[in-house]
Amino acid sequence: MTEMSDQPSKRKAKKQKKFKPKARTPRGLRDMAGDELHLQNHMLDTISRVYEAYGFEALDTSAFEYADALGKFLPDDDRPNEGVFALEDDDGQWMSLRYDLTAPLARHVAEHFDRLPKPLRRYQFGPVWRNEKPGPGRYRQFMQIDADTVGAGNQAADAEICMMAADCMEALGIERGDYVVRINNRKIMDGLLEAIGLDPQGEEFESRRLTILRAMDKYDRLGLDGVTALLGDGRKDESGDFTKGASLDAGQIDKVAQMVSIGADDRTSALESMAELVKQTESGKQGLDELVEMAALFTKLGYDADRLAIDPSVVRGLGYYTGPVYEIELTFETQDENGELARFGSVGGGGRYDDLVKRFKGIEIPATGISIGVSRLAAALMLLGKGAAAAPAPLVVVAVMDKGTRPDLMALVSELRAAGIRAEMYMGDSAMKAQLRYADARGARLVVIEGEDERAKGEVTLKDLQLGAEKSAEIEDNAEWRASEHAQKQVTRADLVAEIQKIIS
Amino acid sequence: MTEMSDQPSKRKAKKQKKFKPKARTPRGLRDMAGDELHLQNHMLDTISRVYEAYGFEALDTSAFEYADALGKFLPDDDRPNEGVFALEDDDGQWMSLRYDLTAPLARHVAEHFDRLPKPLRRYQFGPVWRNEKPGPGRYRQFMQIDADTVGAGNQAADAEICMMAADCMEALGIERGDYVVRINNRKIMDGLLEAIGLDPQGEEFESRRLTILRAMDKYDRLGLDGVTALLGDGRKDESGDFTKGASLDAGQIDKVAQMVSIGADDRTSALESMAELVKQTESGKQGLDELVEMAALFTKLGYDADRLAIDPSVVRGLGYYTGPVYEIELTFETQDENGELARFGSVGGGGRYDDLVKRFKGIEIPATGISIGVSRLAAALMLLGKGAAAAPAPLVVVAVMDKGTRPDLMALVSELRAAGIRAEMYMGDSAMKAQLRYADARGARLVVIEGEDERAKGEVTLKDLQLGAEKSAEIEDNAEWRASEHAQKQVTRADLVAEIQKIIS
Repeated sequence: MTEMSDQPSKRKAKKQKKFKPKARTPRGLRDMAGDELHLQNHMLDTISRVYEAYGFEALDTSAFEYADALGKFLPDDDRPNEGVFALEDDDGQWMSLRYDLTAPLARHVAEHFDRLPKPLRRYQFGPVWRNEKPGPGRYRQFMQIDADTVGAGNQAADAEICMMAADCMEALGIERGDYVVRINNRKIMDGLLEAIGLDPQGEEFESRRLTILRAMDKYDRLGLDGVTALLGDGRKDESGDFTKGASLDAGQIDKVAQMVSIGADDRTSALESMAELVKQTESGKQGLDELVEMAALFTKLGYDADRLAIDPSVVRGLGYYTGPVYEIELTFETQDENGELARFGSVGGGGRYDDLVKRFKGIEIPATGISIGVSRLAAALMLLGKGAAAAPAPLVVVAVMDKGTRPDLMALVSELRAAGIRAEMYMGDSAMKAQLRYADARGARLVVIEGEDERAKGEVTLKDLQLGAEKSAEIEDNAEWRASEHAQKQVTRADLVAEIQKIIS
Repeated sequence: MTEMSDQPSKRKAKKQKKFKPKARTPRGLRDMAGDELHLQNHMLDTISRVYEAYGFEALDTSAFEYADALGKFLPDDDRPNEGVFALEDDDGQWMSLRYDLTAPLARHVAEHFDRLPKPLRRYQFGPVWRNEKPGPGRYRQFMQIDADTVGAGNQAADAEICMMAADCMEALGIERGDYVVRINNRKIMDGLLEAIGLDPQGEEFESRRLTILRAMDKYDRLGLDGVTALLGDGRKDESGDFTKGASLDAGQIDKVAQMVSIGADDRTSALESMAELVKQTESGKQGLDELVEMAALFTKLGYDADRLAIDPSVVRGLGYYTGPVYEIELTFETQDENGELARFGSVGGGGRYDDLVKRFKGIEIPATGISIGVSRLAAALMLLGKGAAAAPAPLVVVAVMDKGTRPDLMALVSELRAAGIRAEMYMGDSAMKAQLRYADARGARLVVIEGEDERAKGEVTLKDLQLGAEKSAEIEDNAEWRASEHAQKQVTRADLVAEIQKIIS
């Protein structure tokens, strides 16, 4: 599709010969291939199928949004790239690469509001970009897959999203017990703050609120002692860094501590314990009613607390959400960065937010949705040994002994492919040893070799690389040549397709 | 996955209330949904399957490349965005969004050369970005799907790519006869220029070469007269614009004209006619040998000239390619922008290029590959009536008469889904009329309605929206109420799943 004029001519290339750039992946970005990429595609496909079964419709927005529509950062002249990747279009408007899939949804809904079905049930997957300091396993581009119901204010919509999240985990092969969707409600948190006497109209409410929520959010990692310290004067961590606390008094700390330590094993008793703490506040009562309605739906549809738990320690961006919040957590244990066993943790989440399009249209449209972090979930599937399921069909490489026979070998490959076998002729110009190395590097299952003598006899050699690898692992003196003898056999040309199908099936 | 600290708090949002951005898609970009998006995903999936069957392996590179690695434009301070979308990272390095999938492949191969299998057979799809003036149907982000064999210098690799391109078209349902892969060789063009006496070492060679190739490239659109004019003094088009010609003399023009007008119906005779014109040059002879070898492979594998044609009028970015070049053309006629019937035209192409990693490593690695323009091909499939095949399963919407019955209705939906039926409960809070409008807007096939009386009798109403639409089209007085009566029926709750399966299967 490239225009001729766009191409550097040979002559121009010669002039630039001296400039030799270093081939390198940009900082914080990466190439993906092999098992990892197959797995990602398989996951996107699987989750899309679940979302579609629930009636959600695919949407794809472009990578860019106007910076003012993103909402998170309004770039100024000095720091247009803060947090997002932004650039100025030639008409002077700033554009940013999307940093999540919610901001583009908000813009899409506001832009096309009148013509869209209401409620709008859309799902979307795609890369998002964060202009942040990269680190180990922390990339500046990663994949998300979201589903949202926009324009539905009732709790059936929230409950559905939670059940769908559980279905996604099981569709990916994550066993019941290895995941849980933990559910809380922002209104209950507001009720708690009210119940301990914080004044929502007070000067310091906002900053104290955030400090309290951050402290509660650390319950998983720091336990009750850590949270208690962060709710009071503050906490010094192992490295000696001090985090200032929320300066609550003992009575206040006690109530917040009671809230975070409510067990999530049983929905009814969790709701009862939460009610004890917040039922006297309007906000708390509303939040409780919403969770009770959701819990009833879960029970009716057979989703028990081992899959969908009510858990008041879930905080999850409460500044943003306005009602129920959900966190998908993988509960199996794995080694954390310090080599200690810990729950794998969050792979996604979401909640209800009623100000999705308010920035654009000035009206409140209720919305609820979920975002799954594909890369993190892929890492979990690898740990669970579910990574290989998504690999493409076994590959057969047809070696080339004599270049003059390429037309016949390509015809042979074509015959294999027509029989549904994934196959290729070796396309390089190297000798047999390099060809076997190539087949090995490609992870091929079988190599077909047709020597001159065999050709005359109407036979070919079939080399089973997988069996060869197994045999050579078995033989302790590492006599690879012996292994390779066991792992290969002569078959007649006429039987080749059937023989290969027998081995790879 | 968002951090609490990243979220604008409610209070902050209040402060920004006065700023209300306009919701708009950035210039030259677009959202994709519905049939168009389903079709795109179906195409990517179908073509990926073909590439995989041929042994190609998926690769995904990030959206960014360092600007110096892209090769096309080295941004300067004044115009860093010329042609590509570029921005400066906070470490001072310029990054650009990829404008094709070849430049990232070159960088990937150069970066990981030692550990990659050789040849490398990779395929990749994804959006690419061009910072160009947008126009009708001309977007600044679009989808490509490429396959390349890197490190194979022989013509079997080229021939394979051409056959695979033909297979892709047929896998997408494009009938034989509606597409053709047209094949030429850059060396033959070089031979032709040599044969008409142009001096490759001469000062003006490069610019005249480009002018001649551009003229030849227009044979399809302008015919022989137009090309002849462009090879000579120049040509004035219908709008009065004058294009300066290549200033060849009559004898030279005659030879070039002979070349472009060689018919492509028969490979052998095309090759013979081409040989007449260039066989006396070294370059021409080499190019001919390569095409002869490819043609023999096509014949051996049963790909006739109606699918894979040798056609010397194919030019395709010859400044870039170094051997065989391929163009995938759809041959069925459609109305062009002026309302006149014309062949649909190119939907992709590629060729051999030996300087893929030369810019990085200083060594020549032979490579050959193809790029398919997904958006343009999607437009073709729509014209051919193949667009709807990719739609998701028919949707069943369960209406809500009484909000108190939501738990039962969600259980019903869950039962439908468990039976493999795509289903959802209406999630909004509006009355029945709006619910039917919603189902219609969603393109739902069926609506399930359970009224209070029906509920008591253990029955539900099943409304067939597709049948309803057909009936109401039949009835000339547009009596929609009558149509709707025909298109709905009572079924017992126990028979519901079976009834729905009968209708949608």
